[in-house]
Amino acid sequence: MEFKISKELILQLEHLIDSKNDRELEILLKDMHHADIAEILDDLDFDEATYIFRLLDSEKTSEILLELEEDLRENILSRLSPKEIAEELDELDTDDAADIIGELSQEIKNEVISELLDVEHAKDIVELLRYDEDTAGGLMGKELVQVNENWSVLTCVKEMRLQAENVSRIHSIYVVDEENRLKGRLSLKDLLTTSTRTPISDVYIRKVDSVSVDTKDVEVARIMQKYDLEAIPVVDELGRLVGRITIDDIVDVIKDEADKDYQLAAGISQDVEADDSIIELTRARLPWLVLALLGGFVTVKVLGLFEGAMEEHGQLFFFTPLIAAMAGNVGVQSSAIIVQGLANNTLSGSLWNRLLKEVSLSLLNGVILAAILLVGSYFLLNVDIWIGITVTTALISVIVIASLIGTFIPITLNKFGIDPALATGPFITTSNDICGILIYFSIAKLILGF
Amino acid sequence: MEFKISKELILQLEHLIDSKNDRELEILLKDMHHADIAEILDDLDFDEATYIFRLLDSEKTSEILLELEEDLRENILSRLSPKEIAEELDELDTDDAADIIGELSQEIKNEVISELLDVEHAKDIVELLRYDEDTAGGLMGKELVQVNENWSVLTCVKEMRLQAENVSRIHSIYVVDEENRLKGRLSLKDLLTTSTRTPISDVYIRKVDSVSVDTKDVEVARIMQKYDLEAIPVVDELGRLVGRITIDDIVDVIKDEADKDYQLAAGISQDVEADDSIIELTRARLPWLVLALLGGFVTVKVLGLFEGAMEEHGQLFFFTPLIAAMAGNVGVQSSAIIVQGLANNTLSGSLWNRLLKEVSLSLLNGVILAAILLVGSYFLLNVDIWIGITVTTALISVIVIASLIGTFIPITLNKFGIDPALATGPFITTSNDICGILIYFSIAKLILGF
Repeated sequence: MEFKISKELILQLEHLIDSKNDRELEILLKDMHHADIAEILDDLDFDEATYIFRLLDSEKTSEILLELEEDLRENILSRLSPKEIAEELDELDTDDAADIIGELSQEIKNEVISELLDVEHAKDIVELLRYDEDTAGGLMGKELVQVNENWSVLTCVKEMRLQAENVSRIHSIYVVDEENRLKGRLSLKDLLTTSTRTPISDVYIRKVDSVSVDTKDVEVARIMQKYDLEAIPVVDELGRLVGRITIDDIVDVIKDEADKDYQLAAGISQDVEADDSIIELTRARLPWLVLALLGGFVTVKVLGLFEGAMEEHGQLFFFTPLIAAMAGNVGVQSSAIIVQGLANNTLSGSLWNRLLKEVSLSLLNGVILAAILLVGSYFLLNVDIWIGITVTTALISVIVIASLIGTFIPITLNKFGIDPALATGPFITTSNDICGILIYFSIAKLILGF
Repeated sequence: MEFKISKELILQLEHLIDSKNDRELEILLKDMHHADIAEILDDLDFDEATYIFRLLDSEKTSEILLELEEDLRENILSRLSPKEIAEELDELDTDDAADIIGELSQEIKNEVISELLDVEHAKDIVELLRYDEDTAGGLMGKELVQVNENWSVLTCVKEMRLQAENVSRIHSIYVVDEENRLKGRLSLKDLLTTSTRTPISDVYIRKVDSVSVDTKDVEVARIMQKYDLEAIPVVDELGRLVGRITIDDIVDVIKDEADKDYQLAAGISQDVEADDSIIELTRARLPWLVLALLGGFVTVKVLGLFEGAMEEHGQLFFFTPLIAAMAGNVGVQSSAIIVQGLANNTLSGSLWNRLLKEVSLSLLNGVILAAILLVGSYFLLNVDIWIGITVTTALISVIVIASLIGTFIPITLNKFGIDPALATGPFITTSNDICGILIYFSIAKLILGF
């Protein structure tokens, strides 16, 4: 289990491709896991990757396609004919096949579907394409094992053996009625430990968790995590069993959601990766920087209001970056804790209690930091004592206000159905910069009177 | 599947507890999922939670214990005798039981273990306690189904039925030799679709992914995600099968890791939640704020170096928060993309290529932002044209340098085996504030000559 792609392996592969040594290549790749081959293809250049892809049989290539990074997959698919793409999809589970078709252009999509060999499979895929990507319908697959509540266990086992041929992993056996409505479930373990003569209606569990086709993917993830489920059946509006979602798809949803929040907190507005193009990365990063720049304009204006202080109390201006930085950091901390609490559903109590707690917390932090600042400004920075007192007073006020803003904004966004993670990152630092500097100089004006 | 805890339910429960109406309480909670009850207990006050906990039978309470927030679990456990704790643990899987014992003090731990009724279970738990929490050994459970490669399928099925009684979910059937060394696996599906007369050695798959007891948890998560595994067997140094890890434990590892990175990016150094105490939250937040404050001291000193500019070019000081904010935001963006790339294993290419790409990217961003700034400073901010040119030139330089720092630091930390996520958040904003201001005023000095 210690698979790591070595430079030597890549060089060896490139050499074999150059010399068109297909036999050696095939031997080298034969026993490799498709996920490892996908990782290798991502590391090779496009022509090399295509060369290897064409060498492998479709049982393997279809799985590899799934694991490739999106750019490379798109590139490889663009070189395949609709018939060839359909051959790949025939090997895949319906949910994976639907995901790949979803990435194709409308025109090619239809051609590919018409080339699918297995009609049942094609029907299932077309059905899945109807659902939104971020709903249970968009996540589910059609591969499941279901039995009728009126069957005997013997019929059941026979039918299951047939169905199991098309299902790579059996999580649960779902029990339905004549109208295909979900009635309950039967665990494989129960089947293993029950005599074959028992009637099915005697053994199945009449309680089964399910989600509806239009349940949001993050909600499905929350439910499966909370109830520790490895698979969950999906029902339509009439309660009929239409598919199942497995935990591996949910792992992706959880990771994507966490990545998205992380990127928003860092001021990156689209799902990008380090290896994306400069244009894509700029599109994700520039908007937030423009926002921060415009916020910067406001801070320039605010500071301009207090130009009068420059002659007598010029040292005040040395502290603006410190005040702004503290306001920004405190605000990000507060909002991050709220965003995470909302995401993990661990936030209890009212908004007022939350703000009250945040005030106490930031007062405690503020007083400690102010003490360090007061001592530091006197001994290390050698500033005028009155400036020291001004900055210290301002620091406490700024920290309290910044933490309130950091708490209030994500909670409010969430109330209005907006993603609270938007409030983290540049948005909160910029607004806290402005507020912080305004508060700082207003207090200075009060104390020093310029 | 639409379980939401309503205020009415909580009020109703509180009322029933007040009036000690145990019968009604039992009826109300009887059909509720243990995860839902845990959520309710987290919402009640401690005495109420304990009251309900004592009312339920141990089959349910043991599962509830697992789902509770740590504080409440600790509180409830502190009110139970070692014998009572042991009764709870007897109901749990070995890995979950070991996790709970791991939270107890050394003294109580030993008493609890001596009170465990099932000796085999106790032995397993004691074994699990030997492993580090963040390794495969610390994650694994002992509940698995294993068969001997020399058995016939008939013996196998009989033995499996016995073993399956103690295993709540069967993922795979592991095949071992006489020395208990892991040789391969047998899927339940194969068993379902194979005649019972086939000898076991004919049907099992002689290839099975496994991890070693001391593999790090994040590495186990990476492997299980990459190869889409729902369970993975764990072997000791001699290749003997000692346990298995299931995907639900891995979901927690993935979530914890993402949460940790997110918190580090926000300047929160410990795993805290919004509902933790003020002291815990302060302990997690204050260190980063002190770091930022000390960084602020340095910016004050740096600005002091350029005091001479104040008389003639005082407007320069209006732009320090803007420059600092841009440096901070760019730095955080760059480092976040690197941290995420490292975490997801999608970073390819050398450090030099990476830095080169970042320079191009930040030059592109920098020029666009500088153009906005130049126009804005002339028309909106009405500053002297030379100050405008100075600030604009500085902005481009600062953005490029900040992005290089943001790229270089996490990659370097990672090379030395330090968590690169440490580089995000206050650390990068503070160092970029200092560098940014230094660069800005140095350029100003060059252009304006004060």
